[in-house]
Amino acid sequence: MSSHPLEELLHPRSIAVAGASQSGRGGGFVSPLLEQGFKGEICPVNPKYDEILGLKAYARVRDIPGPVDFVISSVPAAAVPALLDDCAEKGVKLVHLFTARFSETGRKEAARLEQDILRRARAAGIRLIGPNCMGVYYPDEGISFNEGMPRDSGPVGVVSQSGQAVGEMVQNAAVRGVRFSKAISYGNALDFNECDYLEYFLQDEQTQIVLLYIEGVRDGPRFLRVLRELAAVKPVIVVKGGRGEAGKRATASHTGSLSGAREIWDTVVKQTGVVTACDLEELVDIVVAFYFMKLPRGRRLGVIGGSGGTSVLAADLCEEAGLEVIPLPEDIRVELKKRENPVWDWISNPADFSITDRADSGTDISRLMIEHPDFDIIMMFVSGPWHRGQRFSTREHLKRSGVPLLRGRPSVVVFGDRARGTGREALRYERINNQLKEKLIEMSFPVFPNIRRAANAVSRMLSYYEGRR
Amino acid sequence: MSSHPLEELLHPRSIAVAGASQSGRGGGFVSPLLEQGFKGEICPVNPKYDEILGLKAYARVRDIPGPVDFVISSVPAAAVPALLDDCAEKGVKLVHLFTARFSETGRKEAARLEQDILRRARAAGIRLIGPNCMGVYYPDEGISFNEGMPRDSGPVGVVSQSGQAVGEMVQNAAVRGVRFSKAISYGNALDFNECDYLEYFLQDEQTQIVLLYIEGVRDGPRFLRVLRELAAVKPVIVVKGGRGEAGKRATASHTGSLSGAREIWDTVVKQTGVVTACDLEELVDIVVAFYFMKLPRGRRLGVIGGSGGTSVLAADLCEEAGLEVIPLPEDIRVELKKRENPVWDWISNPADFSITDRADSGTDISRLMIEHPDFDIIMMFVSGPWHRGQRFSTREHLKRSGVPLLRGRPSVVVFGDRARGTGREALRYERINNQLKEKLIEMSFPVFPNIRRAANAVSRMLSYYEGRR
Repeated sequence: MSSHPLEELLHPRSIAVAGASQSGRGGGFVSPLLEQGFKGEICPVNPKYDEILGLKAYARVRDIPGPVDFVISSVPAAAVPALLDDCAEKGVKLVHLFTARFSETGRKEAARLEQDILRRARAAGIRLIGPNCMGVYYPDEGISFNEGMPRDSGPVGVVSQSGQAVGEMVQNAAVRGVRFSKAISYGNALDFNECDYLEYFLQDEQTQIVLLYIEGVRDGPRFLRVLRELAAVKPVIVVKGGRGEAGKRATASHTGSLSGAREIWDTVVKQTGVVTACDLEELVDIVVAFYFMKLPRGRRLGVIGGSGGTSVLAADLCEEAGLEVIPLPEDIRVELKKRENPVWDWISNPADFSITDRADSGTDISRLMIEHPDFDIIMMFVSGPWHRGQRFSTREHLKRSGVPLLRGRPSVVVFGDRARGTGREALRYERINNQLKEKLIEMSFPVFPNIRRAANAVSRMLSYYEGRR
Repeated sequence: MSSHPLEELLHPRSIAVAGASQSGRGGGFVSPLLEQGFKGEICPVNPKYDEILGLKAYARVRDIPGPVDFVISSVPAAAVPALLDDCAEKGVKLVHLFTARFSETGRKEAARLEQDILRRARAAGIRLIGPNCMGVYYPDEGISFNEGMPRDSGPVGVVSQSGQAVGEMVQNAAVRGVRFSKAISYGNALDFNECDYLEYFLQDEQTQIVLLYIEGVRDGPRFLRVLRELAAVKPVIVVKGGRGEAGKRATASHTGSLSGAREIWDTVVKQTGVVTACDLEELVDIVVAFYFMKLPRGRRLGVIGGSGGTSVLAADLCEEAGLEVIPLPEDIRVELKKRENPVWDWISNPADFSITDRADSGTDISRLMIEHPDFDIIMMFVSGPWHRGQRFSTREHLKRSGVPLLRGRPSVVVFGDRARGTGREALRYERINNQLKEKLIEMSFPVFPNIRRAANAVSRMLSYYEGRR
C-alpha cells in the first residue's frame, strides 16, 4: 500500500456529484459511475431534482445523511465557495472541480476566485483535483468520468493536464488492448499538481507504465527530480502541449499554464530519460509496444510476410526508424535449400511472401526466421482475406498467416488498414478485418496499422531501455 | 489526343487473358474486366476450359476469331515465348506480363529468358508492360486488375513499379474520395519503362496529378529530364522504394532493380520539384490535399473547433509542419465584443470550442475566422455525436459543426478516429462516424484522421506550389 495522500483519497466510501442534472455533463458524471459499478454510494446534488438517473438527489451536500468522502463539482465557478463550505461541514476529503472558467480565462476576478477557493479548501483540510478538468478514472474502484471506458484494469497510469487528451488516450489505447490502473486529468493544478500525481504513480504498485500529457510545470526542479526518479523505474511516455509560440498562447487559455521554451523541454527529456511523442497517436503506439512486447535483446529485425512494395518499404522504414534489417542468415538459406524450398536462393529479409507459396514454403521460412538467434525482433504482416471468394475462419486464417509461431518471441504485427472495394463488399471486408484485428489483440500481440508506426514504436521502446542500462 | 504510343495501345477492341482459370489470379484478371464493364470482347485463354466466368474460353490466342489488341499473360514464365509467337500471328499490339519469376529471381537462366522475350516482342512489333506486375487500371475503358476499384474516373494518374503498391494507393485514396485517370504497374520495366509512363501522363490531358512508386531507374538522365518537365506542370508525388541498404537488397529481389544511393535520390527530388512521401499513407494524404484543396495564398492558418488539448496540439503540430498559426486578429475580437460574445477576450487561435456554447457563439467565431482575410487556410475539427443520447441527423450535425461555412475557402477537415465505448455502443458510434466522414468526402472536403497528417499534407502541397513559382 502506498503512503501517498492520494492513495486513501481515491478509495471514497461515497461520491457526491454537485450540479448533477437529468442530462448533459452534470448527469454525465453520475452515469459513468453507474456504468463502472462504483461500489459506494452515489449522491447527485441539485436542488431542482428529487431524483437523477434513478438515484435520490439532494439539495445540498450537507443534506446527504451518510458520510461523503469525495465530491465532483460541476456547479458554476461562482457557486464553488459555498459548495466548499458545505463540504467542510460534511467532512469531505477530496473535491474534483470539473468547474472551469478560472485563471485560464485570463480574467483577474476569475483568478482571484480560484485563489479564494484554494484558501477555503486548505482551511478545511480539503484536497482539490483541478479545477477545469475531467478528474478520475479508476476502474478497480468503479470511478470514471466518461462512459464507455473499460471496466477491467491494467498496469498503465495516466496523468493529463487536458481532459480531452485523457479520454482520447484511454479510449484509443483501450481498443488496442491496453488497460489502465488510474487516469487523472488535473487541469489548472490548483492544489495537487503534476508532481504529486507522478509521485503517486512512482509509489503505486499497480502502475507499471506512465502516460503524461502536460502543458505547464509549476515547480521545475521538483518536476525534473520526480520525472527522473520515475523514468528510472517505470517507462514514462510524454506528450508536451505548448511546444511552440502558438502552442504557448493556446496553453495559457486552456489551463492557464506558462509553457517553457522548446529547448528547456528538450533538456528535461534528455535529463530524465522519458519517451516523448509528438501527439496522442504516437503516444498510444508507443504504449502498445511497451505493453505487449517482450523486451528484445537488440535491434536486429526480421520481417516476414510482406508483399512486393510492402517488403521494400518495410526495409526502408524500419532502417530509418533505427532498426537493423540484417540480410537473411546464410544457414537459413542452406536449410531452405536442403528442404528444397523453391525460393531458397531468392528469398531475403524482408521475406516477400508474394514469391512463395504461402501455405507451405512460407511457413517454413517463417519458422526458420522466428527461431533464428540472429533476429532480436520479428515484424510480421497479417492481412485480411486473400481473395474475395475466401471462405472465412478467423482461427484458420491466422494459423495460416503464421502468427501463432510468434508466441514467446519479441514481435510486432502489422495489420494493414487497406480499403477494399466499395459498398456492401467493403463493409464485409471491414467486418472480417476487424474480427481478425480483435483476435490478434486478444492474443496479446502489439498490432499496428502500418510499418512506420510499428517501427517507430519498437525503436522508441528500445531506446528507453538502452538509456536505462 | 496524345500522340504517345500508349494512347492507342490502351484503347483495345478486345482483351485476351492467357492462363485464365476458374478461380485464383488468372480468373482474377477476367472478373475485374467484367466488373468494370469493359466494352470490348473479353477472351479467356486456357486449353483446360470451355468456359470461364460465363465467357467462351479458347485453347490458344490464335483460336480467337476476332481481332485481339491486348493480351494479359498469367501463364508460367516458360510458356511466355510460345504465347508471344501466338500473339505475333494474331497481330496483338500490347502484352501485359503479369507472369513473373524473371530477372527479379537473381537467376541467370530466368534473366536470359526475359531478354529472349524482349527480342521476340520487338521482332513482332509487340509492346510489353511488365513482366512481374499488375498492369493497367483505366476506369474509362473498363480495364482493371483488381476487383473493387472505382468505376468512375478522375484526374489522378499512377505509375507504380509495385503491383501491391498500386492497388493500395488506388483503393486507400478512393475511400478518401480520390478518382483516377489511369494507374499502371510496370514491374521489371522490360520494354516500356518509368520514363515512358511519365511521358504518357505528361501528354495526357485527363491526368492532372501524378503518383509514382519507383524502385530503380533504367535511364537516369532521361528520368531526371522527364520528371522535371512533368513536375513543372503537374504535381508529382513520389514514394521511392529502396532508400537504404536493406531496401536496396529488397528491390533487387522484388523487381530486379538497382536502387541508387539515398543522396542521389535527394538530388533528384531537389532538381525536379517532385513531392516525396516516406510511405503510401503519406502519399495518399498528400494527394487528398492536392485533389480537394483550393490553393491557399499563403501559410497563415486558422484552427477552429478543437477542444482543450486538441487545440494546443494543433498549434504545435501545425507550426512544426511549417504552417503559421497566427494570433487571433484584433478586429475579430472587437467584433465579438460588440456582439457580446461571452468569450471575446478569451478565445484565441486555435479557437478552443470547449469554452464556447458551440451552437451560438461558436458559429459566430467560426464565421468571423473563415471570412477574415488574414487567414489563408482554415483547419476545422469535426467530431461524431457529442454525447451518447444525441438524436442523430448527419445533415443537422454537420450544419451545427460549421462545416458548410467552409465552402469556397482553402480548408481542411480533421475528423478524428477516436474510439468510444465498447461492444454494441462502439459499433453504433463507428457507423455514425463513418456516415459523417462519407458525407464530408461527398461534399468534396479534404478529410484527415488527425492533425499531424492534415498539417503535413497541406504544408507539402504549399511547398510544391512555392517551388513552382
